Amino acid sequence: MSVEPESLEALIAEFAGLPGIGQKTARRLAYHVLTRPKSDVERFAGNLTNAIEKVHPCPQCHAFTDQDICPTCTERAGAKALCVVEKSSDIIPFERSGIFKGLYFVLGGVLSPLDGIGPEHLHLPQLAARVKDEGIEELVLALGSSPEADSTALMIDRMLAGVNVKRTRLARGIPMGSDLEFIDEVTMLRAFEGRVSL
Amino acid sequence: MSVEPESLEALIAEFAGLPGIGQKTARRLAYHVLTRPKSDVERFAGNLTNAIEKVHPCPQCHAFTDQDICPTCTERAGAKALCVVEKSSDIIPFERSGIFKGLYFVLGGVLSPLDGIGPEHLHLPQLAARVKDEGIEELVLALGSSPEADSTALMIDRMLAGVNVKRTRLARGIPMGSDLEFIDEVTMLRAFEGRVSL
Repeated sequence: MSVEPESLEALIAEFAGLPGIGQKTARRLAYHVLTRPKSDVERFAGNLTNAIEKVHPCPQCHAFTDQDICPTCTERAGAKALCVVEKSSDIIPFERSGIFKGLYFVLGGVLSPLDGIGPEHLHLPQLAARVKDEGIEELVLALGSSPEADSTALMIDRMLAGVNVKRTRLARGIPMGSDLEFIDEVTMLRAFEGRVSL
Repeated sequence: MSVEPESLEALIAEFAGLPGIGQKTARRLAYHVLTRPKSDVERFAGNLTNAIEKVHPCPQCHAFTDQDICPTCTERAGAKALCVVEKSSDIIPFERSGIFKGLYFVLGGVLSPLDGIGPEHLHLPQLAARVKDEGIEELVLALGSSPEADSTALMIDRMLAGVNVKRTRLARGIPMGSDLEFIDEVTMLRAFEGRVSL
């Protein structure tokens, strides 16, 4: 005898398909949903459908947007600094800090031969075109600190060899508020190498 | 400037409303959803709506079902053993082990004065009626091992004072495969008290 109704099993499977959600958590979430008022669950379903229908990558920068062109590309058109990130959600910490007032460009990934991600999977031609066409003066490569991110940054650097644009990357070092005891060796190495005078 | 489109924010809020899902995980899940094919997301939304529309508590035992009467109540009608659990999902480990072939009854909670859950919030009159009307011979109280569960079991025991039904509870002790080193004191106390001859 199957313990659970089919429609409940189907809902568990949906939650289990989400990243980082195992079978047990998926079951807990599905049972929770069934204890909610019907209107709440219908709103959830509606917000899922609504998001996938309305949100799409901005044709200029590939960040998720629900408009023809994303607000950043529209409102900051003409800015001369362009920050390259791996994925759309990487933009959030920049905007939250308010430190960067330029344009963004979502690359769509980093080179990862083991996962079969080569240059052809990234929005490289569009990045090159945007840098040239918009007269970008500084390109901030904010692709994370993995070896894959490093080699991707290097490739972009080479791709723009003949272009007069300053290339920078984010500083590497000790994050704020962290206990030195728990800092990994590579971060420590980078933080020490990059030490500055007081 | 808001970083995220409104419809994306709404989806993040839905995930963040689920138990055990924080703001960061909710954002990760919502961004993941947007990278899926539209048909997958629509199927997810459909399974949410479908589950909340079809699944409801069985009028006899309060377990979640998509039928008028749940399969267990139907197929095991006439069984003389009734297992009382706190919530619908507690039935799963019983059915998975296959050890119990009787009926179930979902109490809908355990007494918890601090959370404002009193006897009036539990399906107690229905439980009493079912025990009497169906001539139940053994009532297995499987309400967990918290003090709240214990006092709930005690109350049920008292409620059925004049009824000729055997009351049992699950054995308490060391779970299978666990390292004794990590067993808490109360479990150890119960396991030692309940030790059996070889």
